[in-house]
Amino acid sequence: MANITKKVSWSSRADESGATGEGTPLLNGSEQPRHSRQDSLRGRPKEIPHNEKLLSLKFESLDYDNIENQLFLEEERRMSYMGFRCLEISRWVVCGLIGFLTGLIACFIDIVVEELAGFKYQVVKENIEKFTEVGGLSISLILWAVLNSAIVMVGAIIVAFFEPIAAGSGIPQIKCYLNGVKIPRVVRLKTLVVKVCGVICSVVGGLAVGKEGPMIHSGAVVAAGVSQGRSTSLKRDFKIFEYFRRDTEKRDFVSAGAAAGVSAAFGAPVGGVLFSLEEGASFWNQMLTWRIFFASMISTFTLNFFLSIYHNKTGDLSSPGLINFGRFESDSVAYNLYEIPLFIAMGAIGGLLGALFNVLNYWLTIFRIRYVHRPCLQVMEAMLVAAVTATVSFTMIYFSNDCQPLGPEHTEEYPLQLFCADGEYNSMATAFFNTPERSVRSLFHNQPDTYNPLTLGLFTLTYFFLACWTYGLAVSAGVFIPSLLIGAAWGRLFGRLLAAITSSGSIWADPGKYALIGAAAQLGGIVRMTLSLTVIMVEATGNVTYGLPIMLVLMTAKIVGDYFVEGLYDIHIKLQSVPFLHWEAPATSHWLTAREVMSSPVTCLNRIEKVGTIVDTLSNTSTNHNGFPVVVQVTGSDEPAKLCGLILRSQLIVLLKHKVFVELARSRLTQRKLQLKDFRDAYPRFPPIQSIHVSQDERECMMDLSEFMNATPYTVPQETSLPRVFKLFRALGLRHLVVVDDENRVVGLVTRKDLARYHLGKHGLEELQLAQT
Amino acid sequence: MANITKKVSWSSRADESGATGEGTPLLNGSEQPRHSRQDSLRGRPKEIPHNEKLLSLKFESLDYDNIENQLFLEEERRMSYMGFRCLEISRWVVCGLIGFLTGLIACFIDIVVEELAGFKYQVVKENIEKFTEVGGLSISLILWAVLNSAIVMVGAIIVAFFEPIAAGSGIPQIKCYLNGVKIPRVVRLKTLVVKVCGVICSVVGGLAVGKEGPMIHSGAVVAAGVSQGRSTSLKRDFKIFEYFRRDTEKRDFVSAGAAAGVSAAFGAPVGGVLFSLEEGASFWNQMLTWRIFFASMISTFTLNFFLSIYHNKTGDLSSPGLINFGRFESDSVAYNLYEIPLFIAMGAIGGLLGALFNVLNYWLTIFRIRYVHRPCLQVMEAMLVAAVTATVSFTMIYFSNDCQPLGPEHTEEYPLQLFCADGEYNSMATAFFNTPERSVRSLFHNQPDTYNPLTLGLFTLTYFFLACWTYGLAVSAGVFIPSLLIGAAWGRLFGRLLAAITSSGSIWADPGKYALIGAAAQLGGIVRMTLSLTVIMVEATGNVTYGLPIMLVLMTAKIVGDYFVEGLYDIHIKLQSVPFLHWEAPATSHWLTAREVMSSPVTCLNRIEKVGTIVDTLSNTSTNHNGFPVVVQVTGSDEPAKLCGLILRSQLIVLLKHKVFVELARSRLTQRKLQLKDFRDAYPRFPPIQSIHVSQDERECMMDLSEFMNATPYTVPQETSLPRVFKLFRALGLRHLVVVDDENRVVGLVTRKDLARYHLGKHGLEELQLAQT
Repeated sequence: MANITKKVSWSSRADESGATGEGTPLLNGSEQPRHSRQDSLRGRPKEIPHNEKLLSLKFESLDYDNIENQLFLEEERRMSYMGFRCLEISRWVVCGLIGFLTGLIACFIDIVVEELAGFKYQVVKENIEKFTEVGGLSISLILWAVLNSAIVMVGAIIVAFFEPIAAGSGIPQIKCYLNGVKIPRVVRLKTLVVKVCGVICSVVGGLAVGKEGPMIHSGAVVAAGVSQGRSTSLKRDFKIFEYFRRDTEKRDFVSAGAAAGVSAAFGAPVGGVLFSLEEGASFWNQMLTWRIFFASMISTFTLNFFLSIYHNKTGDLSSPGLINFGRFESDSVAYNLYEIPLFIAMGAIGGLLGALFNVLNYWLTIFRIRYVHRPCLQVMEAMLVAAVTATVSFTMIYFSNDCQPLGPEHTEEYPLQLFCADGEYNSMATAFFNTPERSVRSLFHNQPDTYNPLTLGLFTLTYFFLACWTYGLAVSAGVFIPSLLIGAAWGRLFGRLLAAITSSGSIWADPGKYALIGAAAQLGGIVRMTLSLTVIMVEATGNVTYGLPIMLVLMTAKIVGDYFVEGLYDIHIKLQSVPFLHWEAPATSHWLTAREVMSSPVTCLNRIEKVGTIVDTLSNTSTNHNGFPVVVQVTGSDEPAKLCGLILRSQLIVLLKHKVFVELARSRLTQRKLQLKDFRDAYPRFPPIQSIHVSQDERECMMDLSEFMNATPYTVPQETSLPRVFKLFRALGLRHLVVVDDENRVVGLVTRKDLARYHLGKHGLEELQLAQT
Repeated sequence: MANITKKVSWSSRADESGATGEGTPLLNGSEQPRHSRQDSLRGRPKEIPHNEKLLSLKFESLDYDNIENQLFLEEERRMSYMGFRCLEISRWVVCGLIGFLTGLIACFIDIVVEELAGFKYQVVKENIEKFTEVGGLSISLILWAVLNSAIVMVGAIIVAFFEPIAAGSGIPQIKCYLNGVKIPRVVRLKTLVVKVCGVICSVVGGLAVGKEGPMIHSGAVVAAGVSQGRSTSLKRDFKIFEYFRRDTEKRDFVSAGAAAGVSAAFGAPVGGVLFSLEEGASFWNQMLTWRIFFASMISTFTLNFFLSIYHNKTGDLSSPGLINFGRFESDSVAYNLYEIPLFIAMGAIGGLLGALFNVLNYWLTIFRIRYVHRPCLQVMEAMLVAAVTATVSFTMIYFSNDCQPLGPEHTEEYPLQLFCADGEYNSMATAFFNTPERSVRSLFHNQPDTYNPLTLGLFTLTYFFLACWTYGLAVSAGVFIPSLLIGAAWGRLFGRLLAAITSSGSIWADPGKYALIGAAAQLGGIVRMTLSLTVIMVEATGNVTYGLPIMLVLMTAKIVGDYFVEGLYDIHIKLQSVPFLHWEAPATSHWLTAREVMSSPVTCLNRIEKVGTIVDTLSNTSTNHNGFPVVVQVTGSDEPAKLCGLILRSQLIVLLKHKVFVELARSRLTQRKLQLKDFRDAYPRFPPIQSIHVSQDERECMMDLSEFMNATPYTVPQETSLPRVFKLFRALGLRHLVVVDDENRVVGLVTRKDLARYHLGKHGLEELQLAQT
């Protein structure tokens, strides 16, 4: 990426911002250039640890373009048609495995949460019942708050101290990964373990969170692990799937994993596929999509099968995924033309509330980045939130006097009688004293008069702020379910008010319908997905009738919300200064050409280059390049050198490690020729250049790069407009794009950061600053 | 495409093969080069009018890559941010319009078919009832057969004589269009009118066809028309949407139209989106997908709304699309783990039967191409099929003795009593004496014992051959519904046999479930779609429970079917010798590089070129090139010329028409500068070069191409492997890809035909021959 330092503004606190950027050794071994930073510390601006106007240089790109060097082509040419068939079959096997394991993990999380939460609520319920009559309910409150805090503490400790990347829902991280950004440690086994344990603790700890978002991350980790046929963490190499050890293949599998995660979480296989495609795949490939679909299906299937055993209905596969909204039967959900404007109005409300949620959470996140970056502080904040959640819930339940008769069907899991008459239960407790999924279901399906409007209003208000405070804590937790819950509450309120106003007509009578629409509106207003979310909602409710209203609502919510602020995930991605590439170049960017966008001058290597030069280039911490155009000089002429290939840092490292020098090859004729396998074995954790010892003698040797470089890199002329460069880059998933003049000489290099810098602000095209943080 | 003649094998009967290739003037005005053909007639092979081993040069490509010349860039740069916003909004408006009009057309077709078919069946029913007791049923048979033939004759005449491209379902044509192949006249208004009238006649005429496939074609035509803001056929230009008058934008809208068509046909908006993406969009763009989804939703919505008025349930929008499978309620559709193998077995049966169907239809199509190519013969064949269908149906009904009691609900539309006792009706007549959609629905939902196994078996057998014979006739008709009907029949049979074998257990009791699975299996076996078809089936049945089984069944059917023969649409595309690009290059094609694939030498133009040279180049009918690399010679040096741009035939034509010559520009200073609008007005029917008069004086003038050429065409080096070239070509939707050497000199040109030539046959990589037919 050439000498980009001229554009770099140094940002402080790289090593203090605990949760996110704490001095991770970059994957390609390019350790943060600490000594050079000292020089530039003088001029750095103060107190901008994370800023959405910066673009971090910390993040590497994935290479979605195959490196077609001679080794690769030889291997491909050696392979027979049957070989390709076997590869294709193993891709399907891997996808099946991904789906199976993701389903198992979902099943594990679900069962453990259900058991533990059941136990917790049972204990608290008995305690409350004991003290309701004799007085002294404050003891129950303390029990509840302490229990919650203790459980959440466990979850927060493992996240904050062991694997900060496992915090949150993981969806922003997976979005970035699928977009082509390498987020350090995001698909490691350790992350998975911490994520799974963390999410169990958060949900059981009674936080306003869901267990669905983390499933997507889990699926992605499973995919990245299974597809490589080895685990670096466990130091096991199964010697299978070696062909898949490169970014191209791995990203495909991670797409499948994310889809399997969605599928398991919401029982929505098609929604999972669409989620992966909406967030990730820039190049739509039919076979890939089918494999993703297959993984999704297997995942739902596995989950259903094991849950059916757990629920003693072995073999009954008709129930949906992790979350169960309950089926909406066709009779109760008929809607009419004149309800459409109402739905759209609800969408607008959802958009407004969603924007408010995002703005509040944005400020909160800024605050957290500045002041709550130590792990112990983070744990304490999480415990505080847990205690407050319990207290608020308790208070609300305590002061609520919404008593409802206990129906004969007894659908409530933990009905709290409290001060209600015998045979009645406290309706506020149904909403608060429950796992969020159950609350959503009861808001959707309970009898029309289950909740009175005051209960619903108060619940919406408190849960809104609780959920907003909770998202961004150092715990593994999703935002889908809390959003749905908030929306379902005000949607049901909306329905009840409508029924009260109009007073006649059975079509208004079912507030469950409005709860569903409200849930969609709120979720859409917060996360701003449309197509995939529509399908997820449709699949999760098991009824396609609502397709059109849900879609209209999600669109309205998105339009209204986007007017104020971006979606929650995008906000968090921006705050991490990730160089995220959107679908298209900014609309008004035709002014810019490759000449302005590219970084130059570029460090080029000769086709036959001195080892010393290569080592020095790689060791130069001030530039930290990753891709080097290879040029060839016509011998005996002073003509400028012409581009003949492109080689990556990682490839050079492997070459140096194996000492593939021209001189050595001559002397040791028996030496094994370097194979693609050597590159694959080193993937993806290539050693840093510092760890490779090159003696002074060896520095004088020469290296022939012809065989290892990508001999046909994509190039563009300098006059190419930014949208055109962007399209090429995005459609092919490139990492480096060489800019050449009309004589085929290298004049610049375009990387992800060069393109992500430009974005459309309020005042037209804006350019982000680059920062080393 | 350079001097490709060396590879061309001339194929006969270009002007005789009525249905398909009848001497259409190519859209870019490059009339069939008749005089040069005389020379090569000697060596041509005999009797290969259409052959799947040939690739026709007749088809032009669409240009999905924007031509970024100076005019374009200037326009884009002039446009403000608000301008882009307005464009975006008008895209949404256009998509809304597309959805609305497609829905209206679907509604029109549905109502007309229902009314006319109702009338026809009522007349025949009364006639049959009259003659049942007095004898002389042969009169009824004749009445039925004559009625059918007469109606079908009308449909066949308008198709065969006025617009042969409107024959069939239109899905293969739309697949090709979305793939980037310009099929002449496929999106014209006349085609739409013929299609709509034709499909009404076919369905009312009692053929074994559906009205759903043609909806997809209709949606595409609507989209192509609306998005251009004018109709060339009607000679009206509304002066709106002028920005969209290029292939890039038009193809996006056609995707939306096709999706809207699917959505209207099956009530499956998500399925529609997936269909468009699966068949067309190589580059997945989020905003585009949303717009497609919007069009789909509006389409279903419009259809539902107007149908609700027609059915006197104004405003009730819950009913699905054109086809109505009826809802499967959750209780009746529960399935169990041990049923999965049964479903997979049914998928395999579907794959086998589908392959048989396709093989039979392939032979039939070959036969038709050879011997039934005159329009009058085609009309007669269609009439024959109609008469035979009526006769066979009548015979089956006549000899069937499957009498069922007429239920109190009276769900049958036209119950035929015939020789049954009073209060009973003939069950075979329910299947035959009905529009195919109604038959499907009754097979899905009627009481378990409605049909006896013999009825089902005989029905499957006869309908299979009737449907197979019907597909490919010169009538507008879809194959979806007949496939579903065949599958539903044998699926129900399968279910009944299962119930008979096992004799116990309520889970086997519902043959409707097996009818659904059978329908999916049969349809999957014939058309070989998976993801989109799964979603379509799920949406059309209104129940997501069956997602997994349907998917497994479709996958099995595809795998089994692909083992024998390709899908029906692909067979027909191949028989038309269309240069269709699949998703990826053939697996074993790494051996090939751009050097082998490209056409060379290439006719290049100079940046400032003599008008005479340009006219001669364009008039050269033996080559018929469409894209010309523009090169620049360093003045006063003998260095070889370097690539500096690419210009299209259509652009040159417009330049010649407006006489944009250097000398004229100097003399007439006030002359209006050529604008993008002039190119757009000429789009897409650019005049042929023969129609442009260039005087001898003008031939000596010079033309400066700098402003009009695409100054930054994508290029690849000669060593680039075929898969890499393919990926670039497909991902960006290119039409011409220039191959350059390391000095940036043009050495070749890769076009669609060069890539489509290579395909994976039974004996490894095969190369198709190119033909001018």
